[in-house]
Amino acid sequence: MATLYYFEGRGRGEFIRLCLSAAKIEFKDHFLYERAEFLKLIEDGKLLFNQLPLLEIDGKQLTQSNACARYVARKAGLCGKNEDEAVQIDMVSEGGRDFMTPFLPIGFKPEADVLADAKKKALPKYMPLFEKIAAANGTGYLVGNSLTLADLSVLEPLLACVEYFGMECFNDYPALKKVYETVTGLESISRFLKSSHRQRKNDERYVSEVKKVLAW
Amino acid sequence: MATLYYFEGRGRGEFIRLCLSAAKIEFKDHFLYERAEFLKLIEDGKLLFNQLPLLEIDGKQLTQSNACARYVARKAGLCGKNEDEAVQIDMVSEGGRDFMTPFLPIGFKPEADVLADAKKKALPKYMPLFEKIAAANGTGYLVGNSLTLADLSVLEPLLACVEYFGMECFNDYPALKKVYETVTGLESISRFLKSSHRQRKNDERYVSEVKKVLAW
Repeated sequence: MATLYYFEGRGRGEFIRLCLSAAKIEFKDHFLYERAEFLKLIEDGKLLFNQLPLLEIDGKQLTQSNACARYVARKAGLCGKNEDEAVQIDMVSEGGRDFMTPFLPIGFKPEADVLADAKKKALPKYMPLFEKIAAANGTGYLVGNSLTLADLSVLEPLLACVEYFGMECFNDYPALKKVYETVTGLESISRFLKSSHRQRKNDERYVSEVKKVLAW
Repeated sequence: MATLYYFEGRGRGEFIRLCLSAAKIEFKDHFLYERAEFLKLIEDGKLLFNQLPLLEIDGKQLTQSNACARYVARKAGLCGKNEDEAVQIDMVSEGGRDFMTPFLPIGFKPEADVLADAKKKALPKYMPLFEKIAAANGTGYLVGNSLTLADLSVLEPLLACVEYFGMECFNDYPALKKVYETVTGLESISRFLKSSHRQRKNDERYVSEVKKVLAW
């Protein structure tokens, strides 16, 4: 079984958890709480860049969250049926990561400030762009006619939008709302969101655990 | 012929130029100097996320620099001979992008400050890590026994190190120095570095052109 080594929280781990769940790959969350555990992983040569997350899968030690996500997505055939789809998925996925970036500091900076900034800048920029992509594709997915890495990459910030701003965030974006509903309606994703793999919002405990393990 | 739309400078365009050159794909640099040209590209629907660079290739409009680089690398067979190599290349490439990040603000922030910070943090972190990867692989390339996207991704920050800090930056890193010499010694890369595709260091003119086009 695959094992994801990360903190007990979302951060850079949640996208990999989402991809593993979508790929229907069973995995175990190994949470790190102590600095010694982190130093042991480094000492054992398991962290290529001395960074978490670490995904142990197929006898490999994978790091760099986007490389982990693409590996899992390739295994599950979520990277497109041909080169046209592959490059479109890659572009949209990168955009999804950009859209997620402003949400990552929640808790490390005051939540209200981070959210106000996301609402002011990231949502007005990205929601119309992903709406356009969703409407042009018109299948309920962002690329092609089935789930791909592109949907998963964009789903993570959309989940944050809905959690913090409510479904009203889709008021002007019906095609993107349909993508959200299609993807969250898939059995694999719906099960993930209700499972213990889905981590809670960033809170003080998570932030203090991260700081302790990384000696920030 | 492929065309790269970007500023007359390195920024997010240089990695794509490097990949196109390594892939031996002929391309034209289309430099943007005026805001109207940028707005026209948006209006024409060519910029998926309203951002540069844009790579026109094979009848496609590609954006997101990492997606562009991977597309070019796939075309040229620079993404590995099997899944083991593919995921290793992907991880090392992501590390190369992380290593490049601290150099990107040169000129947008005072050059001396950016370089002092890179010398204090990025070099002591990444040089030993890439040395370890280079030494473990031992072929003069970072993954496998021929040029891959991993080498190109790491080459860009290494070029910056050599340019700003001199070849002494390799003093404790012989295997990484060998990678640098192997890769810059390839005819395709050596030709690129001497060509008009290779952009000058960030200077005041470049920074003011970027700010003008993007209305910062």
